[in-house]
Amino acid sequence: MERIKLGMVGGGNDAFIGAVHRIAARIDDKFELVAGALSSTPEKSVASGEALGLKRVYEDFKKMASREARRKDGIEAVAIVTPNHVHYKAAREFLKRGIHVICDKPLTSTLPDAKKLVQAVEDSDVLFILTHNYTGYPMVRQAKQMVADGAIGRVRVVQVEYPQDWLTVDQDIKQARWRTDPAQSGAGGSVGDIGTHAYNLACFITGLEAETLSADLQSFVSGRQLDDNAHVMLRFEGGARGMLWSSQVAPGNENALRIRVYGETGGLEWAQEDPNYLWHTPFGQPKRLITRNGSGASVAAGRVSRIPPGHPEGYLEGFANIYSEAAEAIIAARDGQPAPEGVLYPTVYDGLKGVQFVTACVKSSARNAAWIDLDL
Amino acid sequence: MERIKLGMVGGGNDAFIGAVHRIAARIDDKFELVAGALSSTPEKSVASGEALGLKRVYEDFKKMASREARRKDGIEAVAIVTPNHVHYKAAREFLKRGIHVICDKPLTSTLPDAKKLVQAVEDSDVLFILTHNYTGYPMVRQAKQMVADGAIGRVRVVQVEYPQDWLTVDQDIKQARWRTDPAQSGAGGSVGDIGTHAYNLACFITGLEAETLSADLQSFVSGRQLDDNAHVMLRFEGGARGMLWSSQVAPGNENALRIRVYGETGGLEWAQEDPNYLWHTPFGQPKRLITRNGSGASVAAGRVSRIPPGHPEGYLEGFANIYSEAAEAIIAARDGQPAPEGVLYPTVYDGLKGVQFVTACVKSSARNAAWIDLDL
Amino acid sequence: MERIKLGMVGGGNDAFIGAVHRIAARIDDKFELVAGALSSTPEKSVASGEALGLKRVYEDFKKMASREARRKDGIEAVAIVTPNHVHYKAAREFLKRGIHVICDKPLTSTLPDAKKLVQAVEDSDVLFILTHNYTGYPMVRQAKQMVADGAIGRVRVVQVEYPQDWLTVDQDIKQARWRTDPAQSGAGGSVGDIGTHAYNLACFITGLEAETLSADLQSFVSGRQLDDNAHVMLRFEGGARGMLWSSQVAPGNENALRIRVYGETGGLEWAQEDPNYLWHTPFGQPKRLITRNGSGASVAAGRVSRIPPGHPEGYLEGFANIYSEAAEAIIAARDGQPAPEGVLYPTVYDGLKGVQFVTACVKSSARNAAWIDLDL
Amino acid sequence: MERIKLGMVGGGNDAFIGAVHRIAARIDDKFELVAGALSSTPEKSVASGEALGLKRVYEDFKKMASREARRKDGIEAVAIVTPNHVHYKAAREFLKRGIHVICDKPLTSTLPDAKKLVQAVEDSDVLFILTHNYTGYPMVRQAKQMVADGAIGRVRVVQVEYPQDWLTVDQDIKQARWRTDPAQSGAGGSVGDIGTHAYNLACFITGLEAETLSADLQSFVSGRQLDDNAHVMLRFEGGARGMLWSSQVAPGNENALRIRVYGETGGLEWAQEDPNYLWHTPFGQPKRLITRNGSGASVAAGRVSRIPPGHPEGYLEGFANIYSEAAEAIIAARDGQPAPEGVLYPTVYDGLKGVQFVTACVKSSARNAAWIDLDL
Repeated sequence: MERIKLGMVGGGNDAFIGAVHRIAARIDDKFELVAGALSSTPEKSVASGEALGLKRVYEDFKKMASREARRKDGIEAVAIVTPNHVHYKAAREFLKRGIHVICDKPLTSTLPDAKKLVQAVEDSDVLFILTHNYTGYPMVRQAKQMVADGAIGRVRVVQVEYPQDWLTVDQDIKQARWRTDPAQSGAGGSVGDIGTHAYNLACFITGLEAETLSADLQSFVSGRQLDDNAHVMLRFEGGARGMLWSSQVAPGNENALRIRVYGETGGLEWAQEDPNYLWHTPFGQPKRLITRNGSGASVAAGRVSRIPPGHPEGYLEGFANIYSEAAEAIIAARDGQPAPEGVLYPTVYDGLKGVQFVTACVKSSARNAAWIDLDL
Repeated sequence: MERIKLGMVGGGNDAFIGAVHRIAARIDDKFELVAGALSSTPEKSVASGEALGLKRVYEDFKKMASREARRKDGIEAVAIVTPNHVHYKAAREFLKRGIHVICDKPLTSTLPDAKKLVQAVEDSDVLFILTHNYTGYPMVRQAKQMVADGAIGRVRVVQVEYPQDWLTVDQDIKQARWRTDPAQSGAGGSVGDIGTHAYNLACFITGLEAETLSADLQSFVSGRQLDDNAHVMLRFEGGARGMLWSSQVAPGNENALRIRVYGETGGLEWAQEDPNYLWHTPFGQPKRLITRNGSGASVAAGRVSRIPPGHPEGYLEGFANIYSEAAEAIIAARDGQPAPEGVLYPTVYDGLKGVQFVTACVKSSARNAAWIDLDL
Repeated sequence: MERIKLGMVGGGNDAFIGAVHRIAARIDDKFELVAGALSSTPEKSVASGEALGLKRVYEDFKKMASREARRKDGIEAVAIVTPNHVHYKAAREFLKRGIHVICDKPLTSTLPDAKKLVQAVEDSDVLFILTHNYTGYPMVRQAKQMVADGAIGRVRVVQVEYPQDWLTVDQDIKQARWRTDPAQSGAGGSVGDIGTHAYNLACFITGLEAETLSADLQSFVSGRQLDDNAHVMLRFEGGARGMLWSSQVAPGNENALRIRVYGETGGLEWAQEDPNYLWHTPFGQPKRLITRNGSGASVAAGRVSRIPPGHPEGYLEGFANIYSEAAEAIIAARDGQPAPEGVLYPTVYDGLKGVQFVTACVKSSARNAAWIDLDL
Repeated sequence: MERIKLGMVGGGNDAFIGAVHRIAARIDDKFELVAGALSSTPEKSVASGEALGLKRVYEDFKKMASREARRKDGIEAVAIVTPNHVHYKAAREFLKRGIHVICDKPLTSTLPDAKKLVQAVEDSDVLFILTHNYTGYPMVRQAKQMVADGAIGRVRVVQVEYPQDWLTVDQDIKQARWRTDPAQSGAGGSVGDIGTHAYNLACFITGLEAETLSADLQSFVSGRQLDDNAHVMLRFEGGARGMLWSSQVAPGNENALRIRVYGETGGLEWAQEDPNYLWHTPFGQPKRLITRNGSGASVAAGRVSRIPPGHPEGYLEGFANIYSEAAEAIIAARDGQPAPEGVLYPTVYDGLKGVQFVTACVKSSARNAAWIDLDL
């Protein structure tokens, strides 16, 4: 099977997430990075491309889209890993030329952009994959499958949190600058950068959507324009309730995304920093530790896992699973086929929900935590 | 030093918390249980008293108060361990007769009762100790001291939760019946029974009071009259914010009271089920595990600890600490002295705050999670 | 039921274990401490007795034994909590006068003394209880019951360890002095003080006895006369094998007794510092967390547990269980009855095995870790 | 920088470790797999090669070595991932033709083979890298650096263990068959397959070599020819002592390699299944949790880590580090340079020590756990 030719927008020398996407694309050997427009500054783009040994380096994503579309050996997919406000503009160029798009989250920096991007995807005949990478972890798949199979009964309560600590003090580094700048990030600070992951994870595992939320956002660090801590209460369709906490000012939390789901007959717990474990309590029985590829793990987890239990997989493998799922869908699409059964990746609609979540949080907080419908 | 003669109201044969109070009073050998009115049913009271080998058994607390007050060797203190709605009526009888009162939480089942009880205490010249027992744990003392000493800087965020699972299904046992009956428990279900503990713990450790809250209460089990799950957002004086979750329908949680406090320069984490550990992260340094009586533990923790590190103390020892603090205060009071420096126990004012918390939660939830001031 | 009148030998003002025994005896209210010879120095004995409010204070244990035996209200049992070399001499005095003996471990400081003590017990008509207190933990009882019930199949491998760190450097405190003095402790250092606990625990849970061992003992701290670290290989009857590690020079270990038992069909893990948890893996199934009094806990654990799951019990409660088991046996003995079914406590024979273990370790190490039979 | 052309011997369709090597070689994009002799059965070799999309597939490693050596674009390095008994024969072919060898562990199935392989490497002018992959984990590097820097003082005690459970019952699968066959594995069962990893890790972190050992090996599963459980006592140069346990019959242990090192002033603990954490206790201070790339992590850990703290790296990244270290050395060797400072990988001498360890274990056990020098 020939590897999928991949281009990349963003992800230049000093970017974090671009390097992650490149490793993720490489792990299962289904992609080959061949082209890039790696920075909004043309010189940086060229320098970064050369540093990576790329042969086709472009000054900007527009040129890349148009020229690659004309090549016989042009890219079949593009990874967009820029700051949020560029996602829509960049994605549009590739979608309209029939190039599959793999895009980092959140979908866009504004709700109108998100809706236009949904339209652009619907108008195209290609795939759009959003890298809500935490849904790629095998034990997250396991949890989703267990909820769907009724292992904990009807869901009542969702507790999801995503605390970090790196913005506890003002940080003058590139990663911090754009994430705390409304023009590049959008109206959400922590809610956009990591709250969207938490929200997406809650919906992914439970199979539920929230209808309305009440949010209390704070900016604790002096001079910061966007929230760095957010408290959110959620009401899901069908009666389940949730709490969501995102924070970037919680010392002792590196990247502590964690979810707990409680239903009428049991509970599930998962933590991103120890991702190979899933705790399951059938009510009235001892808590059980289900491990990746271990006893008790399901097919849904096993198909996105590479190595035996006890040999930990991590963040990069979970991220790689999104790429490999995308690859399976792209390869099927070559023959006009839908993705094979079981293949699962976040879509543009998940992305829209994330931007609705951010928008609703900001709106609710501005109205003193009034309940705001998510269907904005 | 002569042991303090203690009476008990409530705590008959099939009660849970009465037995706990008795062991707690015994551990440090500062009390001697000599009298009791152990049930609201006179026959049960007598039978329970005999089973305990008590010599002075009364049919009801009124008789006990009046007769003990007249004895030369009458009780010096009384423990009230009845369902909530009896607390005020019982305490009043002893307070007015100059007998110190040790009372289980929450203070009362209604806010008016709570205020009357505050008045009754102020009108008396005796001590009133509320058994918010979790403040007796050495590492909780350690946490409070560290916050006061500035170990984590000005507090920004408080995450406190108290999930249990025993009411996941309808339970027809005594412990469940009165706790889910508004007439005996008051207007709060989980918020009254365990949410008050969580709220008290947050205030105790941070030294802060909440000004206002927004609460979303649920009763998930069909037919249940009181909340069995509660989501609460808190705003503390001085700008700190918090989330509080109490639940009795979260399978896999036995008694999982847990608190995390984040300040400008560090974070603290403590969990009741593993109470001998306190996690401290000074921002920018590795997380540290402070253990009871171990390296890094302070005098505040050491003075309420009995045995060396690595020899775990538990719930009963933490509870006993409240009794032993009470004993020190009572003994000092014999000579008209204030409690010795460092002695610390929850008071009737902490109890009032707890009832205000419950009342505010119920009121807020009834108004769709509107913000309600706690100064009710 | 009248409380058992208890005397105490040793356990004066600055002793650790004496205070533990007193609390343990008090927790379940079955004993009343009425007499003591609390130190080998008569003045200290008197001063310590007064500090405790004891009415009958003796200058030495001989006087206490003879005088108490003559009183109508004399002690029914005595707790011996002296350094090891006094155990035999003290126990003898009480045994021959028909007073039940509760004795700290190890049984004696020498093997001949141990054998004489066995004889003395056999010659008496009273009970001898050795406080191998770790066998009092509910989850240790649970583990023993599960092995007996075949939950892990025939035992193959036992891994038991007991590391501490308090003797990492030379300590000039009372607790350290006698424990590192061969004249008071016997020939074993860490193997006697804590290795015996580990060995006893392994035998208690598995129901097996070791036949032979190979030991490599070290004294890492300069000038120390007894071992402070010991590596032991064990061969049990029936083919099971084990490793035992005891150490008092392992920084980061406070009191980290831990055991893992593996059989043909499953495994069990328990750690003293987190004593409310027992891990059980049925081979081919997920690991399960059995909690004290929680789902999955057995009657054997429940009968020595006081409070609901999630309310941690600790070291003192585990110790108290030995006292309460002793009390049940003593009360039955008043009527010439055997202890009720299920009552379990370490005996003089367990004590002899412990001294044989220490003796074999020292002998083996002196012979370059040659295999030494335990049946010495 | 051009990628290193890599060939592979072994690692056909149903092999576990071959796939791991391929991913590991790919993660950092420094190798390109171009040739293979993937099975000892020529047809399987061809089929496996085709399945991987390899263009140069050989029937056996001899042909591969001779033909690749003659090509201008021939492989620069070969990965040998066969059962143990083939390592020497295969490596020899490539070494003598100037092709760098990356070889799985243990080095060989016999001690004579190991010595011949050392000679072959010394006679060649190429590099030999042994994939003791656990030394590639960042926190293992951190631990080694800390010991070297004196963070725990002079080492006294090493506790290392490597339990698994997959051979608890007889397994008729390829992975189990060759590992339990002396002709393919060598004289060691668990000691060869995983004990060598544990031993290597102990030496790597402490910087010490063991001088002598005493081993008690068992085969618990009926009919098994090689040990499936091993108890080993170690004596290191300079006086440190250790215990090593390897087992493949310990239910509940998936791949639980774990090491604890204690010195005169502190302790370190690391567990493979949670590899992003390293526990450090400076004696007399609280235990600290050092995290990969987090506060407290050193340059030694950071240079083999890709992503921020809290984003877990796992087994494959640790394995990839060995490949990337190899790549740096190979690239330097192109110019006749030594590997850059800091580059670290296991060598043929580490491999020899591993085979000596296995040989000594088997010999010791056959002599009833007599002490055997490792310098065989």
